[in-house]
Amino acid sequence: MNYPHIEQDFSEALSELTAAFGERFVTSESACRLYTRDESFHVSRPPHGVIQPETREEVQEIVRLCARHRMPVVPRGAGTSLEGNCLAVNGGVCIDTASMNRVVAVNHDDFDVVVQPGVTRRQLNRHLKDTGLFFPIDPGADATLGGMASTRASGTNAVRYGSMRENVVNLEVVLADGSLIRTARRACKSAAGYDLTRLMVGSEGTLGVITELTVKLYPVPESIMSASCAFGSVEGAVDTVIAMIQYGIPVARVELLDEQTMSALNSYSRTDFPVAPTLFFEFHGSEQTVREQVELTGEIAGENGGSDFVWARTTEERNRMWRARHDVAYSSKLLHPRGQIWSTDVCVPISRLADCINETRRDIDETGILAPMVGHVGDGNFHLLLLVDHDNPAEVARAEALHGRMVGRALEMDGTCTGEHGIGYGKCDFLKIEHGAAVEPMKLVKQALDPDNILNPGKIFE
Amino acid sequence: MNYPHIEQDFSEALSELTAAFGERFVTSESACRLYTRDESFHVSRPPHGVIQPETREEVQEIVRLCARHRMPVVPRGAGTSLEGNCLAVNGGVCIDTASMNRVVAVNHDDFDVVVQPGVTRRQLNRHLKDTGLFFPIDPGADATLGGMASTRASGTNAVRYGSMRENVVNLEVVLADGSLIRTARRACKSAAGYDLTRLMVGSEGTLGVITELTVKLYPVPESIMSASCAFGSVEGAVDTVIAMIQYGIPVARVELLDEQTMSALNSYSRTDFPVAPTLFFEFHGSEQTVREQVELTGEIAGENGGSDFVWARTTEERNRMWRARHDVAYSSKLLHPRGQIWSTDVCVPISRLADCINETRRDIDETGILAPMVGHVGDGNFHLLLLVDHDNPAEVARAEALHGRMVGRALEMDGTCTGEHGIGYGKCDFLKIEHGAAVEPMKLVKQALDPDNILNPGKIFE
Repeated sequence: MNYPHIEQDFSEALSELTAAFGERFVTSESACRLYTRDESFHVSRPPHGVIQPETREEVQEIVRLCARHRMPVVPRGAGTSLEGNCLAVNGGVCIDTASMNRVVAVNHDDFDVVVQPGVTRRQLNRHLKDTGLFFPIDPGADATLGGMASTRASGTNAVRYGSMRENVVNLEVVLADGSLIRTARRACKSAAGYDLTRLMVGSEGTLGVITELTVKLYPVPESIMSASCAFGSVEGAVDTVIAMIQYGIPVARVELLDEQTMSALNSYSRTDFPVAPTLFFEFHGSEQTVREQVELTGEIAGENGGSDFVWARTTEERNRMWRARHDVAYSSKLLHPRGQIWSTDVCVPISRLADCINETRRDIDETGILAPMVGHVGDGNFHLLLLVDHDNPAEVARAEALHGRMVGRALEMDGTCTGEHGIGYGKCDFLKIEHGAAVEPMKLVKQALDPDNILNPGKIFE
Repeated sequence: MNYPHIEQDFSEALSELTAAFGERFVTSESACRLYTRDESFHVSRPPHGVIQPETREEVQEIVRLCARHRMPVVPRGAGTSLEGNCLAVNGGVCIDTASMNRVVAVNHDDFDVVVQPGVTRRQLNRHLKDTGLFFPIDPGADATLGGMASTRASGTNAVRYGSMRENVVNLEVVLADGSLIRTARRACKSAAGYDLTRLMVGSEGTLGVITELTVKLYPVPESIMSASCAFGSVEGAVDTVIAMIQYGIPVARVELLDEQTMSALNSYSRTDFPVAPTLFFEFHGSEQTVREQVELTGEIAGENGGSDFVWARTTEERNRMWRARHDVAYSSKLLHPRGQIWSTDVCVPISRLADCINETRRDIDETGILAPMVGHVGDGNFHLLLLVDHDNPAEVARAEALHGRMVGRALEMDGTCTGEHGIGYGKCDFLKIEHGAAVEPMKLVKQALDPDNILNPGKIFE
């Protein structure tokens, strides 16, 4: 990749932006410093300036101006990425989508909604509250829809509802030359030409700036039931999930938490779950089908060494259980007072998941790093929350080596270095190992659509 | 696009191919003539030669040789495309995948299968017979998996199981320079870089030649029930399907057939269905959930003017019913002795489907063309089977005008000119109207990955 901007003086571009946007174009050091971090331990230099455009036309104007000066454009949503995906590593202008936060149209009968990119997933579900519909994709953080599309996010519901890959209907995008395209219509399928929607989803702002998107919605299920179940081994838990899929049980969520995680969770959330590999389940459907799913799952779990189900019987209990799951990052931090979380994200074919987890657990124990584990087990995706004191170089080196071995193990098992966080700039090396010869066509696509490499440079590719 | 090959003399390339592959490289006029048609009315010039490679390495060798001579490479599966997608409109070498027809690996616990591109969907399901798994995507014809991936095919099961877009896990592809890539691993999701899998799916052989692919499998449902239900109006049928989705009924198939289609079907298949807009349903699940789906659907249909369900009670009756649905092309042909079928393929948001069908039906009646209609109504996708005497220029002109208005209507309703057949060379003009400014980035991608335009030239873009 080509980085003309690294050595460049952008003063002329910055003056033009100030002339065009006045005080809305912010360049003060204190303001720009707020854009040097995401939710991970990654830190970058600040952008040269930040702007919150309000319309697609303003985004076009900014990109055109930046294109003329070959100045980087870095789109940013809620800043909740985990691999530095939204950081201005080469400086430039940060496009903060916070002011493009309108729900444009709920198409009730079509089960879709058109939103601006700055709408967050919780905001969207609040907006949908009385419609009987909901948006299921739930990364831990309250990310924006634009950001979630950009990183191909998923979360705990993906086993049933898919990831952003399956749930983006179309995107409106400003390309590197400032032109505006719509990647598809609102029809639920199409065979008309290249799938630009899927090309943009997961491209982390390196191919265009999203200015509007349509995503799928689902009917709120008539009945929701949640339960937890402790197992004697990770294998028992994973085999339970494989059998559930075999039986066609359309489980909505099935999350695996290991012993260490359960112990931390009990301390932080004041719960008294057994300290053992545990599955958290959620079932969606009519009362009758949910009852049937629950019975069958109970039998399968029993055959695989699972305990009786502990039910979250009320909405409140259910929310408490899933809140505890989502708070794993916070509860894990208690394990290491000086530790910062380093969230790993491998994903393997489900038949290899138990092996991958067990081998990784042995490696962790030998390394002596604290690393609670949570997994979207139906997808074969799991995270270690490595607790690392970043002021301790020896600890950082041990964690890096552990992480490298973990990714290597996943790749050997035909898996990926990232199930849902993206490459950002934290995983560029892993991308090369994972994709080999396929990195070249990716780069050719990038060069074709952004020849001056102004769109979020330094991400995905070095 | 650049077409250097149109004026070129390929004799040197042809000699080299003969030297490399001997009699396996076929150039006789009679053999090449077999490759001038697909399943539609489109006819093209023959390719210069045809070869059935047996390995990925042979495909690489052919593509490298053709690349050196800038000779077109046209991949072809079962030849069942409907827009001339696999025809050698500029000549060149046809790569017929018939000899790459091996099921490489069934990964039972991962619910996926690795196949060579020439495996057909029926062959795959026969292979899976005793595994408890099946592959659901069913375009009418017994297409190859490679061809289905290339055209982003779907069929009657897409409402429940998705199209090829959702069901291809990864592809092994030979690029225009002869290099071999794998677009993804076998993990069920990944956020690692650009989604080359989805970029290749639907690219109709214009970006690479598929040499292997992994697709998703599903557990064979415990219980399957099929029924038909006649309605007083198209609206009643469509509103039934919208309400079913609203209730979260996971219907496996729901096909709409209009009056004219039902009448033709009764004559051809010797059935006695009512001659009225009719839905054919299929439900998959456990006995209990299927019973529940059926009851609820029956109530909804009743509220929307539907008749009592006519059950296909045995496997034999069920097969007869779906055979009649799949034979619509044959039964429709009876309506016009000199007519050839011209299959249209618009897809609109489901909220606009009844309007789109009714306006189209009025237009058909005014035009006087015979045009039975079938629809994958859960997807908003429907086909007119225009019956046209291609030796009658006035009739062809009327049909073309009707088709143009139909596509225009679908686009105005935020729909697409093709839900599942692809662009081929029959719909290049519609692609431009549908995608507008978005055609340019598609062309940039094509030029980046195939600068000499040797891969299936003349398709998608003119």
